Amino acid sequence: MASVEYAKGLEGVIAAESSICRIDGENGKLYYMGYPIRELVKTCSFEEVTYLLLYGELPNAAQFEAFKKKMRGSRGISEPIKAMIRDFPKESHPMELLQAVVSYLSGYVEHRIQHDAHCNCRNTLHQVSQLATVVAALHRFRSGLDYVEPREDLSHGANFLYMLRGEEPTELEGKIMDDCFTLHAEHSFNASTFTARVVASTLSTCYCSISAAIGALYGSLHGGANEKVMDMVDEVGDVAKAEEWVNATLDAKKKIMGMGHRVYKAKDPRAIVMEDYLQQLGELKGETKYYDILKKIETVFRNRMEEKGKPIHPNVDFFSGAVYRLLGIPTVLFTPIFAIARAPGWLAHILEQRSDNRIFRPKALYVGHQERPITPITQR
Amino acid sequence: MASVEYAKGLEGVIAAESSICRIDGENGKLYYMGYPIRELVKTCSFEEVTYLLLYGELPNAAQFEAFKKKMRGSRGISEPIKAMIRDFPKESHPMELLQAVVSYLSGYVEHRIQHDAHCNCRNTLHQVSQLATVVAALHRFRSGLDYVEPREDLSHGANFLYMLRGEEPTELEGKIMDDCFTLHAEHSFNASTFTARVVASTLSTCYCSISAAIGALYGSLHGGANEKVMDMVDEVGDVAKAEEWVNATLDAKKKIMGMGHRVYKAKDPRAIVMEDYLQQLGELKGETKYYDILKKIETVFRNRMEEKGKPIHPNVDFFSGAVYRLLGIPTVLFTPIFAIARAPGWLAHILEQRSDNRIFRPKALYVGHQERPITPITQR
Repeated sequence: MASVEYAKGLEGVIAAESSICRIDGENGKLYYMGYPIRELVKTCSFEEVTYLLLYGELPNAAQFEAFKKKMRGSRGISEPIKAMIRDFPKESHPMELLQAVVSYLSGYVEHRIQHDAHCNCRNTLHQVSQLATVVAALHRFRSGLDYVEPREDLSHGANFLYMLRGEEPTELEGKIMDDCFTLHAEHSFNASTFTARVVASTLSTCYCSISAAIGALYGSLHGGANEKVMDMVDEVGDVAKAEEWVNATLDAKKKIMGMGHRVYKAKDPRAIVMEDYLQQLGELKGETKYYDILKKIETVFRNRMEEKGKPIHPNVDFFSGAVYRLLGIPTVLFTPIFAIARAPGWLAHILEQRSDNRIFRPKALYVGHQERPITPITQR
Repeated sequence: MASVEYAKGLEGVIAAESSICRIDGENGKLYYMGYPIRELVKTCSFEEVTYLLLYGELPNAAQFEAFKKKMRGSRGISEPIKAMIRDFPKESHPMELLQAVVSYLSGYVEHRIQHDAHCNCRNTLHQVSQLATVVAALHRFRSGLDYVEPREDLSHGANFLYMLRGEEPTELEGKIMDDCFTLHAEHSFNASTFTARVVASTLSTCYCSISAAIGALYGSLHGGANEKVMDMVDEVGDVAKAEEWVNATLDAKKKIMGMGHRVYKAKDPRAIVMEDYLQQLGELKGETKYYDILKKIETVFRNRMEEKGKPIHPNVDFFSGAVYRLLGIPTVLFTPIFAIARAPGWLAHILEQRSDNRIFRPKALYVGHQERPITPITQR
């Protein structure tokens, strides 16, 4: 068997064609449906980007109004869902709850499983807006607070902050939260998006496919990198200690979190936007500590790497955790926020998978026992 | 782009090594950990097979007693889970509920996500026995009946029937149900098992991985074949009409459900056991109609295929639906039963994946738009 070759983790193996996302790692560019991410953040709201991902084109004004109305009108959650959230054990992770709620919601939405490959459940996809409500409700209940009804006059980002806090965020805060969702909305294949496509390839429902993807994003090898960056920032504690900390960490051959990316060789374009927002928010709130520490870590780290001829840049996770913290969001919600943001990307992949479907069914290479007889239990 | 080759649905692509299951399709043999399936059904209970799949070896008497005690002691479900089941919309599919409950349970079990590849949650895996309780509870609530507390003196199969009915099944019925679970416990890679491994490869929890797998099994291209066989049996209605029905169906170039298998060229060994049980149950209950219709369909179909030099045999789904129906189980529970049975197989794959892990991250072949400018919304 030793001579049979295969790619562990399917690394480098093409699993499907896709028109959704292009990552130009050499030049530090990311595109959704051909539009550069930095232009999208400048011009479009998260809801507009959601439309783009679901329909493949940006909406005109009338299309967008109708879509926004549906998406905002679906933010509320019903009593049984609230009960699930309230009853969820306090010490457990919100991602487990989110995965559960989304498949449970599958039973609530007006779509039934299609026995042909054509997915006609696009009409109910606006309901993914409920993910934000579920996360906010969990946060409120765990803090001993009441559920806050969503508001339809706010953007997806601003409404999320409103539901978390019970009061309206500033315009800048709302805009930053909304753009954070946009920046994380899609990133081609990875374990969660691939999971969504594998489940969708069986013609399971969109909700059940997204639920499965949330399960994958929960894994510590996938989501959660920005949590670890904030652990690092907290450990450093003070900008005056950053240089020594980075040098000691590198001398001990340990990793600096949030630096470098498997795909981006130039600076991650999302990191550029995030860094700018962190600086703006820090100045506005008179709390520049996180920005200062992170920039110092980056500078020391990059200098050390450049000495070795290895230019390494920060990725999106390097700054995003600090942005969330300045928005008043607890660390345990960072990965759930990733899920809220990525839902439109997952949906785009589910729709694409089903538009030209073949069920995913790779092979295993059997390396186990050959036939053996069963010894009676008394003689084992 | 047209010149780049890839295998759609990863067909024929090796995704990992595995020691769990061997299918010898040419000779109609199926092995779990090297033991032939027909020997396992003869000698071992489903709980013993579960132990085999989780630990790689059959238990000795002491190991089995301890494991059985844990597994049976974990059958009960808590009030919040019962509320979820009770509140689930009546017209929705039990698989959506089952997927939701399993990730919700992840928050209830005493295991937390491991940040290394080594999975030490084997201690909580006996709790997958709760899947049977969830399915039985849903059936009871939907029938306007009360929840039946599980009993620890019954096998997994007998207890499942007891919880469904509220009264103890006969010994033969309990044995058949238990063996049906064993026959479906494992079958190497397919979309649901592959999903479980992809999610587990992120180091997500075992429960979240199984929840995702349930989402894949729910798809109409994956689970549900035995439902369609029973639709066929109901459509035929009478053994006297079977020959004409098969001929008409084949003449119209339509498919006969439950015949033939992608992997088995000889008769599916599970179908042999199922056929025998269907005959026994039919005689016992004085209801041989299903057996008679199915055997007639098989005979006519096989004769027609042999004329063309294509020997095609029934697969496990051909007989299993009729067995379940004679056990008094409604059709909507057939796929959930598949999930109850497959849970140990999924767990075995999750444990194997994590014992030598690399995250699944295949590539997409980008075939979409090149960079394009954003037209302002008023001009779209």
